[in-house]
Formats: sequence, structure tokens, C-alpha cells
Amino acid sequence: MTESPAILPSPLPARAGPGPGREARSIVLVGLPGAGKSAIGRRLAVRLGLPFVDADAEIEAAAGQSIAEIFARYGEPHFRDGERRVIARLLAGPPLVLATGGGAFDDPRTREAVRASGAVSVWLKCRLPTLVRRVAGREHRPMFVGRDPAEVLAALMERRHPFYAEADIVVNCTDESPDATTRRVAEAIAAHRPPARLRVCLDGRGYDILVGEGLLARAGGRIAPVLPARRVAVVTDTAVAALHLPALREGLAEAGIAVAAEIAVPPGEASKDFARLQSVLERLLAAGVDRRTAVVALGGGVVGDLAGFAAAVALRGLPFVQVPTTLLAQVDSSVGGKTGVNLAAGKNLVGAFHQPRIVLADIGTLATLPPRELRAGYAEVAKHGLLQGPLWEWCEAHGAAVIAGDRAAQAHAVLESCRLKAAVVAADEREESAEGGRALLNLGHTFGHALEAECGYDGTLLHGEAVAVGLGRAPPRGGRRRPSARGRPGRVIEHLRACGLPARLADLPRRFSAAALLARMAKDKKVRDGRLRFVLLRRPGDAFTAADVPREAVEALLREEGCAA
Amino acid sequence: MTESPAILPSPLPARAGPGPGREARSIVLVGLPGAGKSAIGRRLAVRLGLPFVDADAEIEAAAGQSIAEIFARYGEPHFRDGERRVIARLLAGPPLVLATGGGAFDDPRTREAVRASGAVSVWLKCRLPTLVRRVAGREHRPMFVGRDPAEVLAALMERRHPFYAEADIVVNCTDESPDATTRRVAEAIAAHRPPARLRVCLDGRGYDILVGEGLLARAGGRIAPVLPARRVAVVTDTAVAALHLPALREGLAEAGIAVAAEIAVPPGEASKDFARLQSVLERLLAAGVDRRTAVVALGGGVVGDLAGFAAAVALRGLPFVQVPTTLLAQVDSSVGGKTGVNLAAGKNLVGAFHQPRIVLADIGTLATLPPRELRAGYAEVAKHGLLQGPLWEWCEAHGAAVIAGDRAAQAHAVLESCRLKAAVVAADEREESAEGGRALLNLGHTFGHALEAECGYDGTLLHGEAVAVGLGRAPPRGGRRRPSARGRPGRVIEHLRACGLPARLADLPRRFSAAALLARMAKDKKVRDGRLRFVLLRRPGDAFTAADVPREAVEALLREEGCAA
Repeated sequence: MTESPAILPSPLPARAGPGPGREARSIVLVGLPGAGKSAIGRRLAVRLGLPFVDADAEIEAAAGQSIAEIFARYGEPHFRDGERRVIARLLAGPPLVLATGGGAFDDPRTREAVRASGAVSVWLKCRLPTLVRRVAGREHRPMFVGRDPAEVLAALMERRHPFYAEADIVVNCTDESPDATTRRVAEAIAAHRPPARLRVCLDGRGYDILVGEGLLARAGGRIAPVLPARRVAVVTDTAVAALHLPALREGLAEAGIAVAAEIAVPPGEASKDFARLQSVLERLLAAGVDRRTAVVALGGGVVGDLAGFAAAVALRGLPFVQVPTTLLAQVDSSVGGKTGVNLAAGKNLVGAFHQPRIVLADIGTLATLPPRELRAGYAEVAKHGLLQGPLWEWCEAHGAAVIAGDRAAQAHAVLESCRLKAAVVAADEREESAEGGRALLNLGHTFGHALEAECGYDGTLLHGEAVAVGLGRAPPRGGRRRPSARGRPGRVIEHLRACGLPARLADLPRRFSAAALLARMAKDKKVRDGRLRFVLLRRPGDAFTAADVPREAVEALLREEGCAA
Repeated sequence: MTESPAILPSPLPARAGPGPGREARSIVLVGLPGAGKSAIGRRLAVRLGLPFVDADAEIEAAAGQSIAEIFARYGEPHFRDGERRVIARLLAGPPLVLATGGGAFDDPRTREAVRASGAVSVWLKCRLPTLVRRVAGREHRPMFVGRDPAEVLAALMERRHPFYAEADIVVNCTDESPDATTRRVAEAIAAHRPPARLRVCLDGRGYDILVGEGLLARAGGRIAPVLPARRVAVVTDTAVAALHLPALREGLAEAGIAVAAEIAVPPGEASKDFARLQSVLERLLAAGVDRRTAVVALGGGVVGDLAGFAAAVALRGLPFVQVPTTLLAQVDSSVGGKTGVNLAAGKNLVGAFHQPRIVLADIGTLATLPPRELRAGYAEVAKHGLLQGPLWEWCEAHGAAVIAGDRAAQAHAVLESCRLKAAVVAADEREESAEGGRALLNLGHTFGHALEAECGYDGTLLHGEAVAVGLGRAPPRGGRRRPSARGRPGRVIEHLRACGLPARLADLPRRFSAAALLARMAKDKKVRDGRLRFVLLRRPGDAFTAADVPREAVEALLREEGCAA
């Protein structure tokens, strides 16, 4: 039997879950003139025991002239360049509280410098009347001279709010006292849990996966830096739209991202077909999308695959963003760039590799999942655990918490699943490795796909449930080793069942014919030159592809499991 | 008005058309034992005044032992390695006639070495009874010992004929005298016109365009080296199938390439739609294609775009081969990897960039084209001429010959068009250049597409005819320079009309409304952030993209051309 070594990343120590470093970090305050960046900043610095620095004062000191003079002599681009350098220099030093000039975030490179520095940025967001009141007395400043401050501020608001939206935290400021606002800012900083950020490294088109809570409501600021233009079309399903579209809409609007179309398909696998693809494409084009309009998929695997494929082929390729709302989509289908629809002849037979620009996995959306779907999604986490090794031990210890809705456990499961998958995908983006590579992600899937196909995708058996049975029944090497109740297969079966998943054919409500399942397997997309390929496991963390498992061994196994001939 | 420098290759001197170098080249004879490689080779060498070398004898001399001994001691792989090195060394020296061992072409690297050397390879092809008769007396050779020579030869025939098919020339050998066969071989070599080969350089996926005559009949040998497996599905249209499919079938069969499916769609633009795409995909999958099965497009632009898109998305991407049979497809649509279908909202709104593995442009197929289609295809040659510079002068001198069916002129037009397009595509594969780049290929197309769309793709106006009017009417820079009857636009119009093409709106059988045409232009796929982009020409060889031609200038031009408001 041909074996090939697993091309898997070396196992990483399982971590306690995403969370901010508890060491002191710099705080960057942004907002319009009058928002209180200096007043709040000074108080916040005292409270946090950090130095306070005003960026404009630093720039003036460095240049030996006033900002108004720099503007007048050299123009705004020159000033913004210097401002960015000063801010980057300050943030590279020891932690401090930094109040920026109101226009600092106009420059995308300054926003990027703040993000890259690891500082926490806070947008002090004020309503117009508050700002107008507060700038009274500053009419001598160049921007207000000879103009109505309310008009100037309203114009700045429209222009700059979308940029401020890229700050990590928004604090809505009212007319309360500076001390009260400072207290609320400090609380927001203390409560802030930045999403975990994982990089998928691909030649020239790498992207980040963000895992955390509350991402939908702040989606615009996360997405905007990777979009060619602040314009998107959202594809979702009607069930998800009812639950999560309002939050996403708000999150996009905050960053001034226009929504050219909202396209909601019926929930369920039936939407992943050719007719639906055509209708989504026609609606995208009718909405006037151009090549700089991104498609945002909000939903589970069906929506992600359908919307991603539409994005891949509309105008020969639009930018794409994944906002997965199911556990299955967060741990699996949203990562790796596989998109597609089904044909009558089988699932995912038509599609494209189309990588997203960013993936936002908002753990909060999992709270709205039906328990059966949550469990089914967990089967892919268990699969990733078996491929990775240490993650399998974490699964045995914490899988129940994931199923029970523990958010920290869920975030860890998503993050580590994505980490495993991202490493595999980076090494074999288009599944071209002769052996190993992306194909290893199909552990449990050759059986799983055959079972799903036999059930006709009618909801009798969810994808994750089919995969669970596949994991419980991945064939032993060459049919020679018999599964043992005490060995690995026994532990896999035990864990899956403890999580409420089926793990043996006998756990399913219907019977199957061995011949029918074998015929389904023979149509697997991974078949090469007519030969069936399986992914087998020596032990957790040690998987390999096998191209020549004898058909008889598979058939015997199926019969043993109770299949009819 | 914003201008950007043209990113075009430096103009190349127009050549007299493809043809073999007339200097002496090495001749490599391949074929089964008994085919007469030595007997014919010796006579041919005398006739051509070249030395004769027997590769097996050279190998034995180099190794100091017989081939049978090398096989027995070190095995076949070791022998084939040495054989390849000896052959490559001999072909790197002065011209000679080289008889190879019967198994030399078993090794793909040896076939590649012969191709790369620039030698002319000749397959001496014999029927089985002839071979059996001729090997009588060689029963002592290891391959025949203790076996029936007829059986051995029949098995070798099945195994090796597909490899011999990669030779440049096939000569069918009969029982005639060696002198007679030698004469026919010499004649075949003298008559041989190798296709011109042009490389499209892309990151890691470069491919060749072959331009010449008789390519269909020898297609298998040309295609096989770039296929992952000798298995294809052919997509064509019923009209082209009737004319050219039999030759292609034969050409594929010669190289042992299995045809998993032949899918013929109705001819015409109507086949480039979503429903047809689905049906092609379903038929591909029903035929059992896997990821190593290539899709071969045999036909014009419609077939190439449809088949290419199907190849791009079936199983998330199958290898693809273009065999264009129209002038339009040979000079334009088959090169560059753009594939797609139409939506109700417009042409080519859905598609993919999917580069072919090879393009076979068989000039012979142009003889079967209706004259109007040939002329329409020529419009794209003229466009490439205008973009390139010297090619435009060649067009003015030889365009009439292309239209009249002169094969050398046609081959030159195809080759130089492809050369221009390949250079542009290599620099900007996915049309992402902010300015210039691939967009320059749209010279004449913003008007052209609008005219086509207004005519509803019903055959009133062919694509090339619309482009011709676009070339005659590409708007002057910013509407400031008026076209002059004596200047460049006058020469363009004169040449296009001399070739039987329309060049002004007045040449078309119907009238257009300026508002309707402008509305069509506003939907152009090249529109970015709502701004229309035109490709303008300062002079032949000097084009640029302009993003801000005032709508009023375009409208005035259209009105001047006789459009209604």
C-alpha cells in the first residue's frame, strides 16, 4: 500500500483561547475636533498610570513651527506624512495615551500604522450639537475661519466617521462630565477583547481570519482596509438575514460602506444550485456592481459556497468577504477558498478556488444555532483535532463545553481549527499535491460524502453528522488492522457519541447498501485515474492519503457495519 | 484629461510569415523495430549529405558493453537515462541523421529533449505484417527470445504509437524498396513547414500558441506533452463539428488520446448562455471526467469562451486546450485566458480567467469560413496593428491578401496578432493595471460593444464589424482634435472599407440613438467607480487609456456621425 507522509504543520500547544495580552498597551484616541481627545486623554492617562502625549504638539515641537504654518507652507500631504511618522515613532516606544489630530485617520497609512503597532484605538464619537458647543471659542483655528462651525463639522463628520470606524473601540460621548466619559472609556478598554487574528499565507493574496465576539456590529471597520472601494453586495439566506443582517448593516454603515444589494436565498442545501447561482448573478449585475464591489457572504456553508462562487465569476471575479455564522462554516468552509454549487450528479461538482479578502468569524452568532447544527459543525473540529494531534486532546477535554455554548471554548475551537486548515491550505492551495496536502482535510469525508449522497441531502443526515460517522469508521490501513474498542477508533467513537453525534452506521436511523455506498465513493471528486483515495490515520496528528485501499476491504468493513450487499 | 503611457511591447519587425529555417537541421528517425530506421537513415544521410549515427551503437560504444548487457545489469530506467543523454549530446552537435532505438520515445524527457533540440523528428510508421516480416532473423534479440514476434510487436505498437505520434512528421511505410521510402521521407522533410511557436509567459503557467497548417490532423502529438493524462472531452458546435471534428478525432487517436465526450452546441452567440453552460457541465460530469481530463474547445469564440468557462469551473478547474477555427478566435479570443458566458444584462458578464495549456491555430480551418466572418475577424488584426505600429503598415499592405485567403498572409496575421496580445496579457494577466495594460486591447471596443448590444447579437452586426466601426470612430483626445480625412482616422477608415468592413456608423444598415449608445457604454465592464474609460490612439503603436472623456464630447461625436438624440 502506498503511503505518503502527512504534510501537516507541527502541532501547536493548545492555548487557553483568544484574549488580549494583559500587559499595558498604548491607547490612541481619535475623533473630530471637540470630541475631547485631549481632555479625556489626560484624565485617562492619569487613571492608567501612563504618560499622555498630544500628537499635534509633538509634531509642532519636531517641526519647530505651528500646524497652521506647516499646512500653509507645505500643504496637507506633507503634513500627513510627518504626522504618520511621529505617531508611528511614539507608538513604537513605551505605552502611552496618545491624542491624535482630527485628520490623522484620513490617511490609510496612518490607520494601518496604528493597527500594526498593537495599540488600542478608541473613537470618541459625538453628536453634532455636542461638537458645535465644544468648539465654541476655537473659531480662530484655520478650519473654522470665516465659516459656520456647524457646517464645517457636519462635513467633517460625513468624511471622517467612516475612517474613525476602523478604531478598535467606539465610545459614544454625551454631554456628561469629562470624568464620567473617561470612566466609560477606561471601562470599554478593560472590557475590550480584540478578536484573534490568524493569517492565511498564500502567494501574494494572503488574508486574515478574525475570531471573536461582536464582529458583526463592527464589521465595516474590519473589512474596509481590505476592500478596493467602500461598496459591497451582501448575500445571505432568509433565516440568517432575520437574525444577523441588521447588525451587519449597522456595522457596514458605521464605516460608510454602501450596500449595493442584499440578496437573501432560501436556507438549505437546495439553494446551492445552478438556477440560484444564475439568479444571484443577475441580481448582482442588476444592482450595478463593478469590479471594485465586494461580495459579502453572511451565513453558513451554503451561503458561503454560493456567494463565493458568484463572486468568483461575476465580471470574472469580484473581491469576496466571508462572514460565517455557523460553526461548520467558521471552522471549515469559510477558510481555504473553495466555492461552488451542486449539480444533479453530485455536490460541489462546479466551482472555483476564490479566496476571501478577510473572514470574520463572530462567535456570538453561534448562540442562535440550532443545537443539532452546532453538534454537526463540531464534527469538523474533531476532524481537525485528529489531524493536528494536541487539538484532539483538547477536544476530548473541552468538546462538551463547545457544544454547551461556552464562548471561550467555541472561540478556541474555531481559532485552532482555522489555524490547522490555514496551514494545510497555504501548502497546497489548489489541492494539487500528489499525496497528502489538502486531501488530508478529507479525513472521514469519503465515507461521509457517500452517506450524504445516499440520503439525498434532504436533512436526514447533516454534513457534519455524515463526517462524524466517517471519522468513526475511517477504514483501517489496507483492511489489515481491525478497529479495536480499546484503541483509537474506540476513543473517537466514544467522544463523538458523548458530543451527541452519530459515530457508527448503526447510530443512523436508516440502513445502507454496501454496493450503493461503494458506487457513490467511486464518483468522489478526489478519484484520480479511476482509483479511489482514502485518508487514513495512524494516530491523532499522523494522517496520510492512501490510493489503493482494496475495494474488497472497504466492502467487508461496510458489511461488518451492518450494510446490506 | 488623464493620460497614461501605453504598456505595450516594443514593436517587432514584421516578418515574412512563419516558415522553417532553411539551414540544415538534424533528422531524428523513430519507429518500432523493423520500421527501417537504420536502412532508411543511412540512405537519407547520403541524400542530405549529413553523417548518419545509430543511437544504440553510440550508447554501446560509450558504455563499452552491449545494450542487452546494460539492460540486464542496470535495468531499463538506467539505460533510458543514458540514452537520453547520448541523444541530447548528439543533437547538440552539427546536423546529422540519427536513428534511435525503438524505445527511446517511451521516455517523455527524451521526447522533450528531441523537441527542444530543434531537430526534425520523423516517425516511420509501418503496419504489423510488414514489421513481422522485417524482424524475421532478429529472434535472438532479448525482446523476442522465446516469444511470438507478432505478439511482441502488436503490444509494442499499442504502447509506443501514441509516443511516436509526437514526432514532427509521420511517413507511412509500405513494402516498397528502402530507396523509394527514403525518397518519400526526404520529400516529407522538404515539404515540412513546422508551425510557428509563440510562448505566452505567465507566472508558472506559460503556454505555447502554435500557428500553422495541418495542426488538427496531428493535434494529439502537439497536445499530449502538456496534458496530465491522455484523456480529453471535446466541446464544439455542430457546424464546426461537421467540418473539422473528424480530423481532430484522428489527430487525437494517433497519440492515443481517449475522447471521453464530444459535446456539440448549436452555432451562434445564443449558445453562450447560462443554460447551455449547465448542460455542458452536466454532460462533462456524466462522461466521468476527472481533474486530469482536459477540455478541448474546437471552434470560434463562442465555443472557446463557453468551453473554457466550463473547464474553469468543472470540478473547480480542468486543464483546457484551445483549437480555434475562426480568424477572430485565432487572433483574439483563444489567447489570454478570458472565458465566460452572457447574462441577459450583457455579454461576458460572468466568467473566469482560465489559461489554456496550449493553443493550436490551424490556418487550414480558415478556408471553410464564410467570407463575412473572415472579414470580421480581420478587424481584430487591424486593431492589433494599430496598437503595435509596424503591424499596421503590414496590414495596409497585406490585409487584402488575408481576406482573399492567402495562407502565408493569414499565418503572419495570426502569429503577429498573438504576439502582440500575448505580450500585453503577460504584463497584466487579470486586467488589474490601473491604466494601460490589458485594457488597451479594448481599442474600438467601447463603441463596438455598445453597437453590438443595441443590435441584440442577432447577426445584424458581427463583433468584428462592430469593432471596425469602433476603430474608425475611436473618439479623438478629449474631443479636442477633430478627425481629419487626411490624417490617421482617414487611413483607418479607408483600409477597413477596402477590406469590406464597415468603418463609420453610416456604413451600417440601421440608425442608432446617441442616448441609447451612451447608456450601453455606461454599463461597460471596464467602468470603474462609475467612470467611463476609453482607449485612444495618438498614432499607430501609441495607445493610452483615458478615464475622463467628457460625456458631452462622446455625445457630440455620435450626433456628428448621424445618431439621433
